[in-house]
Amino acid sequence: MEHVTVTFLRDDNIDAPVLVEGLPGIGHVGKLVADHLIHELEGEKIGEISSIHFPPQVIVDEEGVTHLVNNEIYRCEKDGRAVLFLVGDFQSNSAEGHYILAEHYLDIAQDLGVRRVYALGGYGVGHLVENPRVLSAVNMGHLRPEVEAAGGSFENAGSDGMIVGASGLLLGLGEARGIEGICLMGETSGYIVDPKSADSLLAVLSRLIGIEVDHTSLQQRAENMEQIIAKIQEAEEARGREELSYIG
Amino acid sequence: MEHVTVTFLRDDNIDAPVLVEGLPGIGHVGKLVADHLIHELEGEKIGEISSIHFPPQVIVDEEGVTHLVNNEIYRCEKDGRAVLFLVGDFQSNSAEGHYILAEHYLDIAQDLGVRRVYALGGYGVGHLVENPRVLSAVNMGHLRPEVEAAGGSFENAGSDGMIVGASGLLLGLGEARGIEGICLMGETSGYIVDPKSADSLLAVLSRLIGIEVDHTSLQQRAENMEQIIAKIQEAEEARGREELSYIG
Amino acid sequence: MEHVTVTFLRDDNIDAPVLVEGLPGIGHVGKLVADHLIHELEGEKIGEISSIHFPPQVIVDEEGVTHLVNNEIYRCEKDGRAVLFLVGDFQSNSAEGHYILAEHYLDIAQDLGVRRVYALGGYGVGHLVENPRVLSAVNMGHLRPEVEAAGGSFENAGSDGMIVGASGLLLGLGEARGIEGICLMGETSGYIVDPKSADSLLAVLSRLIGIEVDHTSLQQRAENMEQIIAKIQEAEEARGREELSYIG
Amino acid sequence: MEHVTVTFLRDDNIDAPVLVEGLPGIGHVGKLVADHLIHELEGEKIGEISSIHFPPQVIVDEEGVTHLVNNEIYRCEKDGRAVLFLVGDFQSNSAEGHYILAEHYLDIAQDLGVRRVYALGGYGVGHLVENPRVLSAVNMGHLRPEVEAAGGSFENAGSDGMIVGASGLLLGLGEARGIEGICLMGETSGYIVDPKSADSLLAVLSRLIGIEVDHTSLQQRAENMEQIIAKIQEAEEARGREELSYIG
Repeated sequence: MEHVTVTFLRDDNIDAPVLVEGLPGIGHVGKLVADHLIHELEGEKIGEISSIHFPPQVIVDEEGVTHLVNNEIYRCEKDGRAVLFLVGDFQSNSAEGHYILAEHYLDIAQDLGVRRVYALGGYGVGHLVENPRVLSAVNMGHLRPEVEAAGGSFENAGSDGMIVGASGLLLGLGEARGIEGICLMGETSGYIVDPKSADSLLAVLSRLIGIEVDHTSLQQRAENMEQIIAKIQEAEEARGREELSYIG
Repeated sequence: MEHVTVTFLRDDNIDAPVLVEGLPGIGHVGKLVADHLIHELEGEKIGEISSIHFPPQVIVDEEGVTHLVNNEIYRCEKDGRAVLFLVGDFQSNSAEGHYILAEHYLDIAQDLGVRRVYALGGYGVGHLVENPRVLSAVNMGHLRPEVEAAGGSFENAGSDGMIVGASGLLLGLGEARGIEGICLMGETSGYIVDPKSADSLLAVLSRLIGIEVDHTSLQQRAENMEQIIAKIQEAEEARGREELSYIG
Repeated sequence: MEHVTVTFLRDDNIDAPVLVEGLPGIGHVGKLVADHLIHELEGEKIGEISSIHFPPQVIVDEEGVTHLVNNEIYRCEKDGRAVLFLVGDFQSNSAEGHYILAEHYLDIAQDLGVRRVYALGGYGVGHLVENPRVLSAVNMGHLRPEVEAAGGSFENAGSDGMIVGASGLLLGLGEARGIEGICLMGETSGYIVDPKSADSLLAVLSRLIGIEVDHTSLQQRAENMEQIIAKIQEAEEARGREELSYIG
Repeated sequence: MEHVTVTFLRDDNIDAPVLVEGLPGIGHVGKLVADHLIHELEGEKIGEISSIHFPPQVIVDEEGVTHLVNNEIYRCEKDGRAVLFLVGDFQSNSAEGHYILAEHYLDIAQDLGVRRVYALGGYGVGHLVENPRVLSAVNMGHLRPEVEAAGGSFENAGSDGMIVGASGLLLGLGEARGIEGICLMGETSGYIVDPKSADSLLAVLSRLIGIEVDHTSLQQRAENMEQIIAKIQEAEEARGREELSYIG
């Protein structure tokens, strides 16, 4: 086994100028957005990436059939615009593995003609956020105005921030290859899977890639999550009152 | 030293169409079954696997003689049916090592003509189980009916399950090689070495490989373990009554 | 990606006989000194070192632009004396990585004609130090008198000391290459970033490399830190008195 | 840098049929014995082993001079009997490193004509031992009578023992090369550096290698340690009496 194995399911007409990365991370914000887009655009899986740098395990599906842990490449097309997606359930197991996988992701990107990567993620702030901003970073200064015009904020710049894992390395290692990199991070508490933050991020990304999709299912998930949170808060307040009544 | 060293003790007439993996895991269920079968079928050790990915230590036997930590291949034959076993005291030391070792196990399997792997293990449920089921997974959908006919259950499917380590990777990596993989997991608490769960698993496996063996010694171990558990529970109940009498 | 990538920004006239290492460490003493010297001498960045052995992340700068985690080589020149600096925000991720990076640092040093390395760091003593000494070690005995003449102390010798990370390995691995190595360690509590200790270290280093620079900004930072510490101590004493008055 | 670097200080007339390993371990028993023998026999350092698998640091000696962390080969000769020693301050950093280093140690042994390895260590029992036994293991059954005749005990056999690290692997990996391996483990509490246990081990080893040395300095260290322990026990008993008198 090679340390990273890339398998393409077909090889004709799979080029695209743009790659969107939505691997798991804070609040699963990036993953929610990428999975939503693939679903709405009826994306086609064109490749699989397995690696010794992923956890040593298989996933058992609903039929009882096992699947080796891997990441996947999807391709979507709408109104003549093609977009590739890098999605999956895991990031690397080790620090070194992150670098090795990121270089392979970029190899794939270059082979498929990608000139720009969007790395999606969450930006943990430690508290619930009413109106999540979409915080941003770019790997080339000239990209900033375009991101701001689409609604991305750079208010995080100057706070000594780090972007860890695949999102960070796609920008960092992509720069040397001349691949434009834009990282979009939905503000999120960091405590929950956050479809509301994903919804905000999707709006900005849609403007940037020029592809609109229906938000309904994502917004429905966000509303459900809001209701769950409201119930938890109510229960906590009720408990608070009880405790007070004991004291009184 | 190669990172994995495979040494065959003889090389003639050692082929077999089936490999049973029974390395250590939850409740040592898989290991109990494999060791029991090898003992009952008077299996012959035909190979040894040592590796830099095992713990850096030797085992001291009853004669005071050291043995390098390794895994072993046994071969059993009954009524013209030949079966290979992969057994030992350790799995890999690291995530990467799991992948590397699993590929070597599959190399051996292919060299010896293996077309199907049975990966045995335990399925931890966190409480004692009166009638342990044998939960299952397969790496190709067409294998499921055969497993169900033999008494394997797929009730675990759909619970987002993972199979970690050698068992999982033999199925996951075997698929790409065209090797059929069936994982049988005896339901077990996860707190004890569980011969009762192993006994259930053995029944299912016997039907699948078409080889029956005497269960007596395994059932005797299961009864001994039941008695130990009963005594512990009695002691705990006694302590419970005492505590109550203190209160009263 | 190579495991270590060295990129030179220009390649003419970049030799120098001396390399000063100021990577992060105890009290950031070495880093403070190196960064101060580069700033005062208006050093020029001539090279960048990125590696799979650094943390897998990018840094976001004040413009929102990402930069791959790396170390940097600067070159300074004053009165005909040229000095190279190895600086950055990270050391290696792993024990093995420390060795691999240190060998690459020494390869660069040899390529640029370096015959002596100064490794700067802190020497943690666990309490605040009024007049921090500059404790020292050398990789060849004949270097000691020169260091002592410049104000470096060897009072730490004989206490079974270890020097860990890049500083230690530049001396240890440099010896076999015939590169002289002098390690200067500013005494420091180990609890704070310590510009006062850095100021002491700078004085000794300046004498050794024969380059004087203005100390004002470093001393200003030291004074600020002294005031912060004084306030903390005052607050603690006030709390102490309060606690006593409760008792009384 | 190679992952393991072996440097010989001379290469003529350095063969010997026996290697004694005394690297650090439980109670530093093996190290005490090996260092004592080298001192008494006025051994000569003939080789140094450095490696990326050792901790990334240098040791500062009494003169303030740094030394790369390494292991060392000494050679001793008495009455025509030559013995090599493998000593040092560290074992490997990682599980894989243990294997890689052990194979290099055996390569050196074979290059120098070694046909038998004595691996020295401690056997931790968790309490102070009045008359420490020398527990033993061998990598070939025929070696046992010789060890027993010299006073080595095999009472530990049959307790599912493991020998971890260099000592274990020299026996385990040596077997495949046809190198006889005898592991001698001085019984020790595991809480202290134990010269008394080392003294017992030295007696057995001396009979096996046919070289007697003066035990005085080791016995003196053992007596000093006994006195320290006696004082600690006295102090503890005194505290115990005080506590009782408080209660009474």
